[in-house]
Amino acid sequence: MLEDKNQQRTPLEKMGEFGLIKHLTQNFELNQASSEMGIGDDAAVLDFEGKKTIVSTDLLVEGVHFDLAYMPLKHLGYKSVVVNLSDVYAMNAIATQITVSIAVSNRFPLEALEEFYEGVALACKLYNVDLVGGDTTSSKTGMLISVTAIGVAETDGIVYRSGAKPNDLLVVSGDLGGAYLGLQVLEREKEVFKVNPNSQPDLEPYAYIVERQLKPEARKDIPELLQKLEVKPTAMIDISDGLSSEILHLCEASEVGCNLFEDKVPLDPIVISTSEEFKMDSTMIALGGGEDYELLFTIDQADYPKIKGNPNLTVIGHMTEQKEGAHLITRGDTKIALTAQGWNSFDS
Amino acid sequence: MLEDKNQQRTPLEKMGEFGLIKHLTQNFELNQASSEMGIGDDAAVLDFEGKKTIVSTDLLVEGVHFDLAYMPLKHLGYKSVVVNLSDVYAMNAIATQITVSIAVSNRFPLEALEEFYEGVALACKLYNVDLVGGDTTSSKTGMLISVTAIGVAETDGIVYRSGAKPNDLLVVSGDLGGAYLGLQVLEREKEVFKVNPNSQPDLEPYAYIVERQLKPEARKDIPELLQKLEVKPTAMIDISDGLSSEILHLCEASEVGCNLFEDKVPLDPIVISTSEEFKMDSTMIALGGGEDYELLFTIDQADYPKIKGNPNLTVIGHMTEQKEGAHLITRGDTKIALTAQGWNSFDS
Repeated sequence: MLEDKNQQRTPLEKMGEFGLIKHLTQNFELNQASSEMGIGDDAAVLDFEGKKTIVSTDLLVEGVHFDLAYMPLKHLGYKSVVVNLSDVYAMNAIATQITVSIAVSNRFPLEALEEFYEGVALACKLYNVDLVGGDTTSSKTGMLISVTAIGVAETDGIVYRSGAKPNDLLVVSGDLGGAYLGLQVLEREKEVFKVNPNSQPDLEPYAYIVERQLKPEARKDIPELLQKLEVKPTAMIDISDGLSSEILHLCEASEVGCNLFEDKVPLDPIVISTSEEFKMDSTMIALGGGEDYELLFTIDQADYPKIKGNPNLTVIGHMTEQKEGAHLITRGDTKIALTAQGWNSFDS
Repeated sequence: MLEDKNQQRTPLEKMGEFGLIKHLTQNFELNQASSEMGIGDDAAVLDFEGKKTIVSTDLLVEGVHFDLAYMPLKHLGYKSVVVNLSDVYAMNAIATQITVSIAVSNRFPLEALEEFYEGVALACKLYNVDLVGGDTTSSKTGMLISVTAIGVAETDGIVYRSGAKPNDLLVVSGDLGGAYLGLQVLEREKEVFKVNPNSQPDLEPYAYIVERQLKPEARKDIPELLQKLEVKPTAMIDISDGLSSEILHLCEASEVGCNLFEDKVPLDPIVISTSEEFKMDSTMIALGGGEDYELLFTIDQADYPKIKGNPNLTVIGHMTEQKEGAHLITRGDTKIALTAQGWNSFDS
């Protein structure tokens, strides 16, 4: 519904495989001191000068992870990079390079790929990472994106999922549930558009949550903030699949339990009002929604004064002995076992 | 035609996304000293202790890069890894880690993915690389594989495409054209099978070239050999798209020309006889065929005595001034301009 029907269309066959990747990446510069060789040889060459190399990779499939009916390609390029960088920040590391590979069918003209790479370039600029490699190929149907994010960290700075101890505080950045509700709003507008193709959706009231879905940001600022506050989390993970699922990952890796307090879960007012509009429970959305790309981490209680009152961070619970299990303490003071409500791409 | 119809079929929905990746990778061990954290956190952590990090990535699409009608999944897993490692060896570096991501439709049962990962595991073992990450997701149609290979090199050991000088000798490992002809044999058998599903193909006479196609090997041994011989190539590339195309890449990156001698191009006897059977010119197949995964490199003439007579290496030409261009000198002493005959995945 956001497509411009009058756009120029250059068929990909015209470009050839080498011409295409060269064309798409010609304006990318290398800005990281660690990037010695980017695109243009058999492989990239990086120099982390004795520090640790961090590597994370993700695959995004059209019709499974994104819908081009409402996802502009520039946003898709941006989001594909951001969701991978989020994994690097979740190690308490600095993201430095990415590789981006795409497979597209012939229905995509060159201009569509240029738009996608504009989004990639914007993310590279804002997050200060270099594009150092990738592959471009054809697919039989639809679009598929594979991104590998690379980062660097000092040995003693890396935070794994496995370091949480009983009595550690559970902390989350930002607010939750917005991306999932943004998707609900977009899906509703898509249905309206199918019935009446002349309808002009008014997404303005939902701007925050629609942006959380279409153009999410990774919390590059949180590892920087924590370093400034002299807080090293004991464990950390990024919230890609919903708070509940990520808490269970931390508990499993760290061999601890957890009490999560419903009244502490940070929700934006538009998340609360849109939940009511869709007749959904906002806590369930925050717990199961996913795609928020906030950071979830645990800290020693002794560090609490350092983060207290920081508007970016909310203490939402504390860790317990493993045998106590992982629970949600509701507003009504009922204790409910947490279950993974994470999104399962095979379950359709 | 190689499919076993009686195999067990466990639907992927049963596994869930986290269960699936855990199940498929549970038997993979980390053997590299540089692998500090593999699968199981937000990202892998590697320590190259001050040496350079090498990164290369590839995307393989069903129906474009492989045909499951004759490609057993175990071979596909093996080949997906090997073609990426080849890019690392082409930097004169040592491959140390890989990440493997796959997207599959629901027509693939769990057992199919297990078979694929058996091939990945075999390649990891034989090439001594660790699987440290990946993603598993669903696709709307078909199978797609994304592999990122990571390696390590000493600063002064890395060989780029750009260092060749006029008068350097052009050297290739192994022999050429086999993988392309293996594909022709398999395609022919597939057509026979379509007409008569009870036919049993006799591939035995073509064993070498069919194996070059289905289970290629990367030349891990060549950088090791060159180090032993105390030869540092001036430029290097791997042959994935055909000799002609790769020579042109070297010439462009190094700003030189080249004379390639037809009578020097190494061909296995079965490549010559099968070319005749298919009424094709064996030189054209070696020049344009692709997927041989041999290494093509240039050396200073002073290093010639060190490689002379080595059964793994053949001198096939020499570099010239750029203005002289890149040419094939035929057996009949005719000079023909080299053109990229490399395979273009968008041109179908």
